[in-house]
Amino acid sequence: MGGTVPGAPPEGARLLTLTGGIDLASGRRLEEVVVAYETFGRLDADASNAVLVCHALSGDSHVTSGESERTGWWEPMVGPGRAIDTDRFFVVCSNLLGGCSGTTGPASTDPADGRPYGARFPLVTIEDMVDVQARLLDALGVRRLAAVVGGSMGGMQALAWVKRYPERVTACVADATTPRITAQAIAFNEVGRRAILEDPAFAGGDYFDREEQPDSGLAIARMVGHITYLSDESMGSKFGRRLADGAGYAYDFVHEFEVETYLEHQGRRFIERFDANTYLHMTKAMDYFDLTGDAPSLAEALSGVDARFLVLSFSSDWLFPTYQARELADALLANGAYVTVAEIQSGYGHDAFLLEVERQSALIRPFLANAATACRDILRGEDAA
Amino acid sequence: MGGTVPGAPPEGARLLTLTGGIDLASGRRLEEVVVAYETFGRLDADASNAVLVCHALSGDSHVTSGESERTGWWEPMVGPGRAIDTDRFFVVCSNLLGGCSGTTGPASTDPADGRPYGARFPLVTIEDMVDVQARLLDALGVRRLAAVVGGSMGGMQALAWVKRYPERVTACVADATTPRITAQAIAFNEVGRRAILEDPAFAGGDYFDREEQPDSGLAIARMVGHITYLSDESMGSKFGRRLADGAGYAYDFVHEFEVETYLEHQGRRFIERFDANTYLHMTKAMDYFDLTGDAPSLAEALSGVDARFLVLSFSSDWLFPTYQARELADALLANGAYVTVAEIQSGYGHDAFLLEVERQSALIRPFLANAATACRDILRGEDAA
Repeated sequence: MGGTVPGAPPEGARLLTLTGGIDLASGRRLEEVVVAYETFGRLDADASNAVLVCHALSGDSHVTSGESERTGWWEPMVGPGRAIDTDRFFVVCSNLLGGCSGTTGPASTDPADGRPYGARFPLVTIEDMVDVQARLLDALGVRRLAAVVGGSMGGMQALAWVKRYPERVTACVADATTPRITAQAIAFNEVGRRAILEDPAFAGGDYFDREEQPDSGLAIARMVGHITYLSDESMGSKFGRRLADGAGYAYDFVHEFEVETYLEHQGRRFIERFDANTYLHMTKAMDYFDLTGDAPSLAEALSGVDARFLVLSFSSDWLFPTYQARELADALLANGAYVTVAEIQSGYGHDAFLLEVERQSALIRPFLANAATACRDILRGEDAA
Repeated sequence: MGGTVPGAPPEGARLLTLTGGIDLASGRRLEEVVVAYETFGRLDADASNAVLVCHALSGDSHVTSGESERTGWWEPMVGPGRAIDTDRFFVVCSNLLGGCSGTTGPASTDPADGRPYGARFPLVTIEDMVDVQARLLDALGVRRLAAVVGGSMGGMQALAWVKRYPERVTACVADATTPRITAQAIAFNEVGRRAILEDPAFAGGDYFDREEQPDSGLAIARMVGHITYLSDESMGSKFGRRLADGAGYAYDFVHEFEVETYLEHQGRRFIERFDANTYLHMTKAMDYFDLTGDAPSLAEALSGVDARFLVLSFSSDWLFPTYQARELADALLANGAYVTVAEIQSGYGHDAFLLEVERQSALIRPFLANAATACRDILRGEDAA
């Protein structure tokens, strides 16, 4: 997924400036918002074939290679002839508000004083991110989506979309996601945040013009996160207790087991492409997300929703476990929604949504085909009315 | 479990100096070893009623209050009339080698130069810890144990005992433990170690005479550890998504959810009583422990073992999961050992071994009664021979 400098948009991304800024859930306001995004495929004349793919914590707009050489983060799922078929659909993927890939975030310049926001960047919510995406779709001439698709934190955005803009979404793929994360997941996020916040190089968030960067804290946060993306089973079969250097125990505090070397590598790679402030903001947005909101129950919170759903979970995903997907599906079914719910058997843990291509494709492909037809019919009906 | 200063023995602990030092698995040697220990109850005239309780990562010799006012870490399990009955058994609990509770560890003085070992303290293994316990039992006049009992890392010691000193152990309670930890558990340990090692105040391990201590790193390590001791279920029911201050989201990076406040509290309490170097050494000893060793299989590694076993696991323990207890039991059964294996249904996760008093007691009490009888018979047989 790499190849970018924190704060810079992926190569090939376009930029849109939102006029008039945006109001945030926190009550604060961003006067200047730029959205970095990519599109793949062509929008039909009736604008009925748009699919918004929402990226997760560490993703970006480069969901697939498209015309570039660089592989996208969901390459096997999105592209010509693939489950999210760019020959058929107009796929939009934008970098998240608060992120570090070109869309306004903590590394952006605060127009108030011309310096990077750093710690002063206001906290954003999943709903704020979705509002920015809605403004982008306005600019792209997309009144209604055939589908919004997202995995993990991208799935939270997909769910926020159907609740916040029910008149603009025909179908929703909620993949490896949840109406709200568990206390355990909040706890893991908090450990990552503490590692960053207590790294002296974090300097209260204003490290941008400093020599030293909060690499140590960010790497530790990524290590914790990475463990939660895998499963006991996948770590066992991938690494077991193998030593990186087969010669026996070192009796030292170096990286010694292969799993340690792997995590260290993941941490090191991450700091090359990600920003510590963004890590704080993204994990906090995840913690805050609660689809129930102020409603008495999830089912009641979803009463205004008018989309069809594909709810996917993975058997070994313990970060966003299947019981949460079931709770979501039950709440949707209680509202008479059209819901396909499936738990895909996989040992890959939460990362399975990035890896189980065949099984996901077999479910997503026909679901999107139906969604596209329904979207066209609805748009025609609206135009005729 | 608190009340002690890192490096100091628990109040009431006695000290034994091992003459001649000890040789370590690493090939290194400790010339001066002091063991801090406590005993509860009385050793019978035939020395057949000794039970060694082995403590886990953050425990100490104060397994029960005994004659002190201070509650022990396994208070409801050990004491007069309790499952490990101090009216009947002579219970021994010693602080671990490499620990920070009076037994020689990184905070101890290196006789070579009169300064604390700090980073120079040699890495120790579970087997090294057990060797020190064996020397302590020699000094206490205990030739054979009625039982060795341990939970978590204490259970590793119990298992190391039966393999290393088969002629000295009649029965073994392997509680919430494993013949080796998973790759996932190694990964969590490594995250904790990184947080400590990269805390600037760690100063390469030689922080003892400094103003600033590696509290931040140690607290983060404890936070990660603590999550793994609980379960998704217990965190969900204990905290859910409740806010510490019910007034709504703060939109700031403060501790906000109750689970965050709780973890922060756990971290803060821990640094008052624990030493960062010891944390490194204890987790590393856990990582290294592998009961199979150089044997072709666990069953073959256990072929010389001559004890009866009670193997306990807890249904929601995902750190030392039941499948590992089963693997252990199967390997023992393959050797014709007398094994009782039970998975106790509990939502408390790994910490269940500290909390599920009734269910554990119901299994441990009769097991120890049998073990004591068997131990006396064996000792009488040996004395008669």
